Amino acid sequence: MPFDPTSLTYDSRGLIPCIAQEATTGEVLMLAWMNRESVARTLETGLVTYWSRSRGEFWVKGATSGHRQHLVALRIDCDRDCLLALVRQEGPACHTGRRSCFFTELRDGVEIDLPEIQPRHPADILGRGAVITIT
Amino acid sequence: MPFDPTSLTYDSRGLIPCIAQEATTGEVLMLAWMNRESVARTLETGLVTYWSRSRGEFWVKGATSGHRQHLVALRIDCDRDCLLALVRQEGPACHTGRRSCFFTELRDGVEIDLPEIQPRHPADILGRGAVITIT
Repeated sequence: MPFDPTSLTYDSRGLIPCIAQEATTGEVLMLAWMNRESVARTLETGLVTYWSRSRGEFWVKGATSGHRQHLVALRIDCDRDCLLALVRQEGPACHTGRRSCFFTELRDGVEIDLPEIQPRHPADILGRGAVITIT
Repeated sequence: MPFDPTSLTYDSRGLIPCIAQEATTGEVLMLAWMNRESVARTLETGLVTYWSRSRGEFWVKGATSGHRQHLVALRIDCDRDCLLALVRQEGPACHTGRRSCFFTELRDGVEIDLPEIQPRHPADILGRGAVITIT
């Protein structure tokens, strides 16, 4: 059926959470909020556009930093009250300069600052000329 | 520093959103809500425990269905107002029987029911005996 942004379930503030996930690596980058109009703008422009709760205005991700999120696909959950945006992220998603906002992990009751692990090329792991035989 | 669930930022209902992601594949499974006590119970038991907004009670995921979420890691975002639970999911995460709740995708303004794509073994794609040389 044709999609209508009003068919989603928004909370009492007119907002719906949207998870941004890097399409190529599967890394979860951030969660932010959208209203009906930012859902429509995201689909129209291909640039992920949130609603900033703190500033009370539309927030085209990366409009000032350049760290834009190019929409690859937009998915809706079974309750229609959460969105998943698969994106191609330019630069870091987090305002701290980290690739993902989720860089703090709990280990044995202690908060750990996760190292920034870059996706690696197989040659960096196995060496150039390495041969893999599929069994 | 030692982790204290009260150090997270909860909304006016005392809740924080938690994204569940399959640890092995990176698939985003669902989003649900936790309060302070469900964060503490999740860490204590290793079983992801949400707060059911509709039932107004703790919701040990899979307690009735058997589709439990075993906690692999719990991460906190930079604003401390969202959680990411890396999990080992038993069975489907979604109450519809789908592996993920995000099985509806927008394509050209139309909602598409995504096929359930199983993770594939390289041999299913390349054939047994296939050789890959890393360059």
